[in-house]
Order: sequence, then C-alpha cells, then structure tokens
Amino acid sequence: MTQTVKIGKVAMLLASLDEEEKSLFSGSFENIKYCQGKAGSMDVQKVIAAVETAAKRNGIISEQVYRETHALYHAILESLQGVTRGHIGVGNMMRTVGLRFAVVRGRPYEREDEGEWIAVAFYGTIGAPVKGLEHETFGLGINHI
Amino acid sequence: MTQTVKIGKVAMLLASLDEEEKSLFSGSFENIKYCQGKAGSMDVQKVIAAVETAAKRNGIISEQVYRETHALYHAILESLQGVTRGHIGVGNMMRTVGLRFAVVRGRPYEREDEGEWIAVAFYGTIGAPVKGLEHETFGLGINHI
Amino acid sequence: MTQTVKIGKVAMLLASLDEEEKSLFSGSFENIKYCQGKAGSMDVQKVIAAVETAAKRNGIISEQVYRETHALYHAILESLQGVTRGHIGVGNMMRTVGLRFAVVRGRPYEREDEGEWIAVAFYGTIGAPVKGLEHETFGLGINHI
Amino acid sequence: MTQTVKIGKVAMLLASLDEEEKSLFSGSFENIKYCQGKAGSMDVQKVIAAVETAAKRNGIISEQVYRETHALYHAILESLQGVTRGHIGVGNMMRTVGLRFAVVRGRPYEREDEGEWIAVAFYGTIGAPVKGLEHETFGLGINHI
Amino acid sequence: MTQTVKIGKVAMLLASLDEEEKSLFSGSFENIKYCQGKAGSMDVQKVIAAVETAAKRNGIISEQVYRETHALYHAILESLQGVTRGHIGVGNMMRTVGLRFAVVRGRPYEREDEGEWIAVAFYGTIGAPVKGLEHETFGLGINHI
Amino acid sequence: MTQTVKIGKVAMLLASLDEEEKSLFSGSFENIKYCQGKAGSMDVQKVIAAVETAAKRNGIISEQVYRETHALYHAILESLQGVTRGHIGVGNMMRTVGLRFAVVRGRPYEREDEGEWIAVAFYGTIGAPVKGLEHETFGLGINHI
Repeated sequence: MTQTVKIGKVAMLLASLDEEEKSLFSGSFENIKYCQGKAGSMDVQKVIAAVETAAKRNGIISEQVYRETHALYHAILESLQGVTRGHIGVGNMMRTVGLRFAVVRGRPYEREDEGEWIAVAFYGTIGAPVKGLEHETFGLGINHI
Repeated sequence: MTQTVKIGKVAMLLASLDEEEKSLFSGSFENIKYCQGKAGSMDVQKVIAAVETAAKRNGIISEQVYRETHALYHAILESLQGVTRGHIGVGNMMRTVGLRFAVVRGRPYEREDEGEWIAVAFYGTIGAPVKGLEHETFGLGINHI
Repeated sequence: MTQTVKIGKVAMLLASLDEEEKSLFSGSFENIKYCQGKAGSMDVQKVIAAVETAAKRNGIISEQVYRETHALYHAILESLQGVTRGHIGVGNMMRTVGLRFAVVRGRPYEREDEGEWIAVAFYGTIGAPVKGLEHETFGLGINHI
Repeated sequence: MTQTVKIGKVAMLLASLDEEEKSLFSGSFENIKYCQGKAGSMDVQKVIAAVETAAKRNGIISEQVYRETHALYHAILESLQGVTRGHIGVGNMMRTVGLRFAVVRGRPYEREDEGEWIAVAFYGTIGAPVKGLEHETFGLGINHI
Repeated sequence: MTQTVKIGKVAMLLASLDEEEKSLFSGSFENIKYCQGKAGSMDVQKVIAAVETAAKRNGIISEQVYRETHALYHAILESLQGVTRGHIGVGNMMRTVGLRFAVVRGRPYEREDEGEWIAVAFYGTIGAPVKGLEHETFGLGINHI
Repeated sequence: MTQTVKIGKVAMLLASLDEEEKSLFSGSFENIKYCQGKAGSMDVQKVIAAVETAAKRNGIISEQVYRETHALYHAILESLQGVTRGHIGVGNMMRTVGLRFAVVRGRPYEREDEGEWIAVAFYGTIGAPVKGLEHETFGLGINHI
C-alpha cells in the first residue's frame, strides 16, 4: 500500500508558507480539497469553532453529517496537542496567539478502499501578553473521514 | 521586537521536504546551525537519544554543558507531544514509525539579548505494525538555549 | 437525528454482564456485529493487540483496510483512558488486571449517511499484585468507521 | 479476599439502564446506598457540584466530614476521565452533553476491614452543539471512603 | 476546622533535609508515623514498589488491608506527578535519578472524624545519563486512609 | 560536576516555612536572588500572572527579555503540575486555594558555563469550597535561564 498524497505535509505547507513560497508547491494542491483561515484567540472553543466554520463554509465537510464533524473535531484536537505541546487544557492560559490553519481533505492511499482522510494543521506564534514575546508553534492532526 | 529567523518553520521544512524541495529554500538555511537525522523506533528513549547524539556530533549543542542538553531535551519532549498527539507515554504502543528529524539553532529575534534558541521538528509516519498501515505525523518544539 | 442503536451501552452490557444477565438483553444484540474477549495483562501493547486480533478474527473489522484498523485503534485508546482514568501511559505500572472486552459495530443513527460506528468497552478489575487487592474498572471508546 | 458487591457495575447499570431494565436487577440494589441525578452541562465545575450536592442531599456522604468529600471528589474526577477520555481539562470544549450519573456507596469486600467504598458512574451523550450530533460516553471512578 | 499537623510539609522536610537540618524540626516528627527510603531508578513500577515495601515493613500501612494499599498507591502516583511534572508515563525516559522519599501517616485535622491521612514526598535529582547533568525535583501526594 | 546551590530546596523552604523556621536557614538564602508572594485563586492564568509580576517587580527576571519570561513561564507550569498533580487543566475546578510561592534565581553548578537557573515553588492548601475542607499541596519547577 502506497501513500500517494501526503495530506499532512500539504496542510503543513498551506498553514506555514507565505504566498510566494506556496506558489512553488502549486502542484501539491491539486487532487485535494482544502481551505485556510486564521484564529487569533487561544480560547480552545473559539479555535475549534473557527476551523469547523471554515471547513463547512468551504464545503470541505458536510454540515449535516455528524460523522464528518466528528472526524474533523478529533483531527483538530490532535493538532492542538502539537500547538499546546500536550497542555491542551491549559490553552486559555497561553495568551497572545496568532495562528493560521489549513484543512485538507483527500485520498492519501492508492488503494480505493482507504477512502478519504482529513488533515488539520496550525502554524503561528504563541506567547506572553506583550507583542513580540512569543515563539513559533505548530500542530498536525489526521483522521479518516 | 521582531522575529527575523523562523527557526521553527526552518526545522519543519528540513524535516519534511525532499532534497529537491529543500533546494528552493536554500536561503533559509543560512545564519543558523542545523543537523538532520532519522529515528526508526517509537521507543521514546531511543528517539531522544538519536536526536541528542546527532545534535552533539554535529556541534549543534555542547556535550559538556548541561544547560544545553536540558534545553534540547525539553524541545524534543515538546516536539514528541505533537508526534504522539498528547499521548507521549503511549509512545511505545505505536508501532511502525519512520521519523525524520531536524534540529535548528539560531537567533530568531532582532534584539541581541534574546540570544540563541533551539527548534526540534519531527516528520514521518506512524501506524499499525503492517507496512503501509500508517499515516503522517509531525511535531515541533522550541526552547531558549 | 435520532440514535436508534446504542452501541456504547450494548458494548458495556456485553463486557460487564454474566451469561444469565446477558440473556435478559438478547434483543439488544441484534442488528449489530460484535465480539468479546479477555485481556489478562496491563501491558497496553498486548491489550491493544488482543482486541485487534479478536476484532479481525471475528470479522468485525477488515484486516486489509487501514482506515478500519485506525478507527478501532483510536476507540481502544479512548476506552483505555477510562480503564486507566487518564493515566494510560502508566498502564504497565498497574499490575494485576483481569479485563473482559467487547467490540460492537453498528449503525447508531437513523440517518443512513451516518454510516457505521464502532464501540469498545472494557470491564474488569485492576489493582495491586496480590490477588483480591483490586477494584473494578471500566472504559468505553466510540469512533466512526 | 472476595469482592461480594460490585459497586462499580451497579453504578454503571444505575446510570445507563432505563426503569424497565433496572427492574431486572432490583436484587443488586440492596445492601448499598445510592443516588442518581442528571448533569446537562459540560462545565466540569458544575458537573462536580451536581454530583456532590446529590450525594450530600441523599445522605450518601456526610456534608461535614472532609474525608468523605475528598473521596467522592477523586471518584468523580476519575469517572470524568472516562467521560472525556483523558481530556478532562478540555471538558468545557465539549458542547452538548446530556449525562446521567449514579453514586453508590457500599462494602465491596467480604473482609470487614476493607470498609466502605464509593463508585461514581456517568452515562450519556457528548457532542457538537447541534442536537443529535453526538455519541455515547461513559465513565466510572471508584475510591475507598 | 483546623489543620493541626501538616503531614505534607513534614514529609517534604523528611525527604529533603539532611540529618543536621532535620534535628531542628524534631518536634514536628512527633504524633505521626513515618518512614524514609531511597529509589535509584526511574522505572515507575520499581519506585512504587520501593515506597510500598518501606511503608509496609515499617508498619506505616497494613499489608493485609487493600484500602490502605489503595490510599498509599494514589498518594504515590500524585507525588510522582510532581517529580515528573505531569509526564508520569514518560518516567522511564528520564534517566539518572536519585530520589529520597518519606511516607507520613497522621491526623492532620483537629476534628476526630477526619481520621488518618497519608503523605508521600519525593526529593532528589533527575537528568541526563551523565552524572551531574541533572537538576532537583520534588513531589508531594496526600490522601485519606 | 557538582551542584553547589540547591535552588529547588531553597525555593521549597521559602515557600513552606514560617518566619521563625526560615531564620534557621538564613545561610541558604545568600548567593541567590529570590522573591516570595501569595496567590489566593486557582485560576491558573491569575496564578501565573501573580508569579510573573512578583518576579519582575523584584528584579528576579528582566521584564524586557523574552527568554527570561519564557524560562520562568515553563518553570511555573512545571511547578503547577505538582500543585494540581497532573491535572493542570483542571485547575479552575479546584476551589479554595491558598498558595504561597517563591522564585529563586541562582547558579546551582560549580561549572561557570552552566550559568543561571530558576526555581519556582508553591506550597499551600487546596480543597472544597468550605474553609477547612482542604489539604496541603506542593509544586517545584526548575529551568535554565
């Protein structure tokens, strides 16, 4: 079984590259559905809502099918584990946050049965309440959908 | 205060891009010290040892100064939180793993006082014991050194 | 949207009731696929393997499709969070364990699109290395498949 | 040492069975003290308060003795680990919740010295903010009192 | 309700002071039962066994009563959360460890009903596999018994 | 390499001893910089702010240098893991809290290169909302600065 489309890497590139850099990878963004967005708060509930809303508005997942929301929700939670480095419950203690996210839906595997999967990547900065007192952070979550 | 060198993003690119893709970013790999390596086991102790050994052999950190080992160790742990998505203690339950890692040391901030920081990124696959039954995983940890 | 088949409750009953008690609920075990088994170790890797093997041998999930193994794996991990009450990584510290498990696959929702879901329940005792020095423990994990 | 009263299993049955099903187990509810209740919020502080209040009002624990509150509090926390599957701190991110709970106090062991123990079980649904977009969840915590 | 005996503070002092320093607090070690010991490994299972064995040999807890083992076990686990700073499952990754521990049993509260409680404190060093590359660590757990 | 100044133990003594007891250790408080304070809430964000403010006002860390804030922040988080015994995200569920803290900055190691390190200790009580229904709690975090 071969993995033909690296939806995780694609999500990571979409979340972290600037426009000029992304243009170098334009071939990677075919054969997938994706959307991008921003989250400026570290209130975890708001971050999840921002990603879910973007994914639904852009038709990445179906609003009416719970299993798609469920798949996305767990991919977001896994990705936030990377962002908060295991302290997801501490999220609201981490203060200034500037996160960009990307949601990618595609068929990573050659084998037809494996179906569609979803990847959620966050990239940005996290830190103290004074602007500039912050460092980079990143997260990636992947789930079958 | 401006962040002039994005050591986290650079570490991510080093860990996840292939050689041809990396060549597109060659300008990003100046003004930093970095090394790369592989870890084929998910025994967390072995993964940490692989990164520490690579970082010491390549002169990224000094072998004799504990504070540098301490800074690197916590950056590795944070990065592994992303890889294991918060289940770092469960690491040895996750079976086939093929991880590439990059360690980057540099001065992210314009302000001289901020000194050097270190970033550790992992990218690869993680999954069931049968080859191919796996998906991508990613982690990033950053610390002052 | 109504939940018509409570696969979680059914898995709990299968894992915790004795044969006589189960006979009172025989109507609940129709319209689902399920299997049962035992795990006598708290080595988390062995517990996961025991459940995966039982689920594959009994045709609850397909051995060849990674997305089914992936769905089951995460349902097992969630269920073990209940068993270990959040200390899953501490699993191998908990010594005598006698766990029964049940895996249930079915269609919990009326709406056709919601498709199949899987539930994993564990019930048994966990405790000190001397027999009898132990108390009950339970876990339930649910995932779309 | 034999466990003669399975307070954990009894708590699970009380929390998850409907009235008709419970009547099949009426013999199991003798020789124990128990109470039942509901919690409609996933604000963890409110869930804990609901259980503590019910347990005190129904005389399951003494309001004035801190060691009884302490025993119950830790049993609730353990049970919530199952409900949130290890993400207890993320509790307030999980949105619609409909939980029933049961608190059982009894003497599980034949040996007199083992004294009284307490079990807390939750059963219900947890999910997205739209009604019906949710799945089952379960938790069980046990402590000496 | 007043706390008259600070078993936690006493356990911390016993675990961390040298003999001369302890002599300054000799009045604090009356009205309690306590024992002390050492653990040179970070294999969590061995650390727990070392504390349990010391507590039983010194008559701090009764070997035959499970509820006393259960109370001690959870106090040890809580104390190890401080030692490993939340990464208890990662314990075996942390390499050279030199821990001293103290177990204290007493009646902290004036009110008779509150009965006996147990405190477990660890103090020592934790670090890289080279001697000296380590820093201090501390943990305290308290439970009713 | 020898550890000549035990900043962790000193922080513990500062946080937990009363004035009279501290006077017995006055020699230990030389060659270090330290400050003390109180936190009466278990809102984790407020506790962190209280420690950071005290450390900056007393010149223990420099307000303008992010790497010092970063070092302190992670030492506080580690210390809170001990206070909450691994449930840091549950912090706001724990109700009455009376914590004293100490921040110590010094050179623990003989070797000049190891530079300065920082220790944060908390000691106090944590418990139910009724005064007196609480037990002791402690935490220690250490980081290079």
